[in-house]
Amino acid sequence: MIGKSVPRVDAYEKVTGRAKFTEDLIPPRCLIAKVLHASIGNGIVTSIDTSEAEALEGVVKVVTFKDVPEHCYPTPGHPWSVEPAHQDVADRNLLTGRVRYYGDDIAAVVAEDEITAARALKLIKVEYEEYPVEIHPRKSMQGSHPPIHFDKKDNVLARSNYFIGDVDKGMEESETVVRGTYKTPIVQHCHIENPISYAYMEKGRIVVVTSTQIPHIVRRVIGQALGIPWGNVRVIKPYIGGGFGNKQDVLYEPLNAFLTTQVGGRPVKLDISREETFCNTRTRHSIEFDLAAGVDKDGKLLAKDMHSYSNQGAYASHGHAIAANGLTSWRLQYACPNIRGEAYTVYTNTPVGGAMRGYGIPQVCFAIESFMDDVAAAIHMDPLEFRRKNLIQGYYADVYLKPIAANSNGIFECLKKGADYIHWDEKRKEYANQTEDVRRGVGMALFSYKTGVWPISLEISGARLSLNQDGSVQLTLGATEIGQGADTVFSQMVAETLHTDMEHVHIMSTQDTDISPFDTGAYASRQSFVTGTAVRHCAEILRDKILAYAKTLLPEIDTTELELRDNWIWAGKERAISLAALAEESYYSLTNSFVLTAEVSEQVKKNTIATGCCFAEVEVDMKLGKIKVLHIINVHDSGKLLNPQLAEMQVHGGISMGMGYGISEQLILDEKTGRPLNGNLLDYKLMTMLDTPELKADFVELDDPIGPYGNKALGEPPAIPCAPAIRNAVLHATGVAFNENPLTPQRLIDGFQKAGLI
Amino acid sequence: MIGKSVPRVDAYEKVTGRAKFTEDLIPPRCLIAKVLHASIGNGIVTSIDTSEAEALEGVVKVVTFKDVPEHCYPTPGHPWSVEPAHQDVADRNLLTGRVRYYGDDIAAVVAEDEITAARALKLIKVEYEEYPVEIHPRKSMQGSHPPIHFDKKDNVLARSNYFIGDVDKGMEESETVVRGTYKTPIVQHCHIENPISYAYMEKGRIVVVTSTQIPHIVRRVIGQALGIPWGNVRVIKPYIGGGFGNKQDVLYEPLNAFLTTQVGGRPVKLDISREETFCNTRTRHSIEFDLAAGVDKDGKLLAKDMHSYSNQGAYASHGHAIAANGLTSWRLQYACPNIRGEAYTVYTNTPVGGAMRGYGIPQVCFAIESFMDDVAAAIHMDPLEFRRKNLIQGYYADVYLKPIAANSNGIFECLKKGADYIHWDEKRKEYANQTEDVRRGVGMALFSYKTGVWPISLEISGARLSLNQDGSVQLTLGATEIGQGADTVFSQMVAETLHTDMEHVHIMSTQDTDISPFDTGAYASRQSFVTGTAVRHCAEILRDKILAYAKTLLPEIDTTELELRDNWIWAGKERAISLAALAEESYYSLTNSFVLTAEVSEQVKKNTIATGCCFAEVEVDMKLGKIKVLHIINVHDSGKLLNPQLAEMQVHGGISMGMGYGISEQLILDEKTGRPLNGNLLDYKLMTMLDTPELKADFVELDDPIGPYGNKALGEPPAIPCAPAIRNAVLHATGVAFNENPLTPQRLIDGFQKAGLI
Repeated sequence: MIGKSVPRVDAYEKVTGRAKFTEDLIPPRCLIAKVLHASIGNGIVTSIDTSEAEALEGVVKVVTFKDVPEHCYPTPGHPWSVEPAHQDVADRNLLTGRVRYYGDDIAAVVAEDEITAARALKLIKVEYEEYPVEIHPRKSMQGSHPPIHFDKKDNVLARSNYFIGDVDKGMEESETVVRGTYKTPIVQHCHIENPISYAYMEKGRIVVVTSTQIPHIVRRVIGQALGIPWGNVRVIKPYIGGGFGNKQDVLYEPLNAFLTTQVGGRPVKLDISREETFCNTRTRHSIEFDLAAGVDKDGKLLAKDMHSYSNQGAYASHGHAIAANGLTSWRLQYACPNIRGEAYTVYTNTPVGGAMRGYGIPQVCFAIESFMDDVAAAIHMDPLEFRRKNLIQGYYADVYLKPIAANSNGIFECLKKGADYIHWDEKRKEYANQTEDVRRGVGMALFSYKTGVWPISLEISGARLSLNQDGSVQLTLGATEIGQGADTVFSQMVAETLHTDMEHVHIMSTQDTDISPFDTGAYASRQSFVTGTAVRHCAEILRDKILAYAKTLLPEIDTTELELRDNWIWAGKERAISLAALAEESYYSLTNSFVLTAEVSEQVKKNTIATGCCFAEVEVDMKLGKIKVLHIINVHDSGKLLNPQLAEMQVHGGISMGMGYGISEQLILDEKTGRPLNGNLLDYKLMTMLDTPELKADFVELDDPIGPYGNKALGEPPAIPCAPAIRNAVLHATGVAFNENPLTPQRLIDGFQKAGLI
Repeated sequence: MIGKSVPRVDAYEKVTGRAKFTEDLIPPRCLIAKVLHASIGNGIVTSIDTSEAEALEGVVKVVTFKDVPEHCYPTPGHPWSVEPAHQDVADRNLLTGRVRYYGDDIAAVVAEDEITAARALKLIKVEYEEYPVEIHPRKSMQGSHPPIHFDKKDNVLARSNYFIGDVDKGMEESETVVRGTYKTPIVQHCHIENPISYAYMEKGRIVVVTSTQIPHIVRRVIGQALGIPWGNVRVIKPYIGGGFGNKQDVLYEPLNAFLTTQVGGRPVKLDISREETFCNTRTRHSIEFDLAAGVDKDGKLLAKDMHSYSNQGAYASHGHAIAANGLTSWRLQYACPNIRGEAYTVYTNTPVGGAMRGYGIPQVCFAIESFMDDVAAAIHMDPLEFRRKNLIQGYYADVYLKPIAANSNGIFECLKKGADYIHWDEKRKEYANQTEDVRRGVGMALFSYKTGVWPISLEISGARLSLNQDGSVQLTLGATEIGQGADTVFSQMVAETLHTDMEHVHIMSTQDTDISPFDTGAYASRQSFVTGTAVRHCAEILRDKILAYAKTLLPEIDTTELELRDNWIWAGKERAISLAALAEESYYSLTNSFVLTAEVSEQVKKNTIATGCCFAEVEVDMKLGKIKVLHIINVHDSGKLLNPQLAEMQVHGGISMGMGYGISEQLILDEKTGRPLNGNLLDYKLMTMLDTPELKADFVELDDPIGPYGNKALGEPPAIPCAPAIRNAVLHATGVAFNENPLTPQRLIDGFQKAGLI
């Protein structure tokens, strides 16, 4: 079953609209909560008057920052640690009187209906004392009074660095040294379903039904936020309409949980608008990179130097992990004896940066891969040839985090497939000397991406299987389907190991922390690798139990020969007993009945690097400042493909997201207040079908030796390399190096004017 | 925690109305199904015209007996067997054109709303060919043309018998031989919540949410009824409003499941009225008993003979198991060298007999214990003394089914407590010679009741535990809370074995066959004994895993000494590590993390007999035909009480049900059609508070040696002995032996007139 394009197990439910999302499950007479957001970008609330709101008919409860627990809690979807040094930064309250960004949460209303809740918000009177707003990390590092958090006078949340070899000496010995500064924008995930949850109390415990990627982590964080035992929280995750990492953070669930406790446990819904999603959930960090590289006369890298400045926004969320992930990436994939890396993550008065598909790598990839083209241009080398010259072939491992290794490495084959598709050599020549206002170019970029978070953080997953009376199995996981097809590939894995078909595997699509095995959830492209490992072991245990039970039913058969295949127990070449008959016997035998089940909870101490590349051909209308992507291909080495059709879909979505990152997407903030100026889907420009050529996905299917089924990361990688590939194609077309994405019309026209091209 | 009257874990939810029952979960825009019932008592449908119904706006689907699968299926809540000889009788279709009782199901309508569904039913035109109706088993045994089912010309569903010693010789050798005929009525369970379910399709499978005691069995029977793999059915059981055995049968769930398949998987609700519940679900079998006994000159039983005739009604349901259970009871508890028993279960054209609290024992107990008083009267012996003389002391086992044994036997202590409470000796004398129209009397009866169904049928149960990060545990069971307090005592069991408190045990109250461990459900007073055995083992496994993990954290401590107590791991007299800290480490350790879980699926091959008695004092107004119960007590030997307050509540409910059985409850059928004449809660007379004196419950708490916590059956027993105790008290008061319950005013007046007393 592995490697087959079986249809998604949830396809019918989703296409027919039957799949139940959180909104579909809201109980009757559910109360409605709405959050009051600050209308300043930095400061404190000096007075808040809720009396008129409380007097409004239909208002059940108004709470302000004065009513919530005083202790702070962390929000990121990390596994947690028992060691304080490895715990996430706890810098958030449910509501705050210390406004740190425009839109910060200062109060909440619970009312009988939407309209009353909205009216009540407007009746709350707030007065502020305002402080200056700073939205740029390098300026924020110069300090603010008061600091944004704690006693961090320089607003630096964290800094990390490393030194490999001697970079300064390497630069000195280089034939050519190239420097560049690159910057990526704040973007938003723009999942279809906005964050939504509802909460109620049951048997003295709090139940939160929420659109999340990480139900077990949400449970823990609600416990921390409210200061109650974590076992007193139950989190249920229905089908969700995408997440892309925004829902790998604990968003409004703790506030929602708190609000139900304030209304005697009645159900309270807290769904937020698209505008709130842009402003008040999480974004992809904007990061600035100062890069330098020295190369010898053959174009071999002798030294690399990176200094990066990540804009964290107002709260820590995933914090420095994003910038650190980029920093790690800087020392991988390209061979170089001398490497220096330094990263700062800095609080500013902007919407909060968090996890987003790629987790820091789209940013660093834009910088590195733009820079690689710039270095290649500086030494007049074909950028593909330059990369081939410097890329590591075959196995390699990270110098600091050894389990992060390319245990299989198909990057060269990926590059070949991409170059062939885009006709690299021909078009690099063909487009070399254009003079028209409308020009064409080809560009490319590549990346590496680790699979899961070990050994930086914990990897643990669980799986449970139970054999039904008809020989089918129930599969229960804590890992989450978030639209990526996880339920389908997990079912395939079980079918593969039990040697059965999809009809015999019934997966529970809803996660419920009271029931589902513990798993930290959907992020880091971990599930098919980490959870897949647990699923495989669980299925192997069940298979062994089935065969052991078969031996008790078949005492006359040489027991060493039994095998489970095609829903039968085989003794050599003979069918001995059907799995269904065995299963029924296991349930109903008067002499020896017990239901065959298996459960594993497993720490996974391995990691592996997936790679890939993007090749793009673009047409640039310089006067209109318009890029048209003519052809684009991603080629991925993600190990063995579990389901080629689903893999292709992942790549399609990733390319689209990557094109948006390259061409149009950016959340623009007002310099004076940090207020989002385009935080809605009309003004924030996502790619549509009209902007999109045929999205080509191809693969190099090397069996990864440690992937449970030869597989490795594919969830996030497709979104990584497209923006720099497009930027490099524009460079090829026009000779203009744009060092900040997205390449919007205004930015392009400014660049072309500056270059004297228009 | 065992033996403590901790509050019910669901008390708050139920008292506040928050507990979700099936009706509370009906999804929006759910379609409504209604069933068309036959208006004759025996015959065939010669034509059915649904065209007008189908034409009614809002009608989505009309199905008749012509549309349903042709194969028959069984309905009783038995575990199932892989051996055809032990499988239940499959004699039912989803709908039928062969009408076997008044109200049989011949068609169903699915409509957008209740009113349309009801109107559509009236538009279906049906013509019948009628056959004679027979509602009495002894007459039905004489045969009918055509037979009610199959080729059973004598309509006998089953017959069984046994012979111990030589009954005829024993009778010959007896000083006195007494004969009597006794009869019990058809009664109904009258649970508060009528049967209700809704069904829909999800991922090609059928989901049925239903008010049932036996979700895993409902799953199997739906699979059988529809002829689909059982794994393609998912059954969910929310809180339910009582069952008393009616919901230990598969009622309308298969039809509901079928109906959703007929409307493309849309949700369809099928809830039935109180009148349908009386007529179309299940009832307690009416059974007639011919009894004979011979006693020696000392009043010792020398021979016993029983022939019983059970009125099965129109379909097999639990069938002969009820009469057979009574037959087994005939040979237990009283010592007698020569015993004969014979039981017939006979199809008739009446509502279907099924499981009801006591499962045949209330019937046989009424017969036996009335008869014991009649025998005692015949030999002029005090009936309590007569029983004490003949009861077996201490251990005894059934001669045929050896695991059914009184492993502890507190009946003599029970009798003493009951006699003391009712002032037996004084009042037997005081009321000996009354002459007024209003007289008083004291009576008693006793019983024995096995715990679970082993070895007659399979006993299997499962339990799952998972340790939360805060040291609390999640408990998941397939056993069902049906109002009896099961969730509370299971939680106590876990708390006991893990040596923690109730706050640290979180039980999942909903059963879901996709998730919950396999357990056959709530019946046969089995759960605290059978499931309790699985729960204990599961908790022991988890405890051992906790201690094993503790050893890895405490290498320096002598590992033989570790103990789990009060949420701490103790090393001797020192606290070594808190359970919460251990649990958090198990989740988040970077070196050795795995969540501590335990699951058992366990066949339980043991049984044990619970006993008890009822003593009652009544006042009989002979001219009014009215019985007033002045005092009543049940004393139970149910082993160690798990929760004394819950035990007392069980007894209160049982006495009330037993009083109704003795005094007022009977479903009256029209002789010509079999139509219920009083199938509603106005005309069917249940006990109310106004009919009820203080209900006294007392216990003899012998530790049962094989009960998981020293406990044995208490769910059903309280309902058993009250009716014959009241009947015997009336005998004592008036000298008139009523051999048919209930003792309604008409029956009393007829009896007293016949005896010349009024």
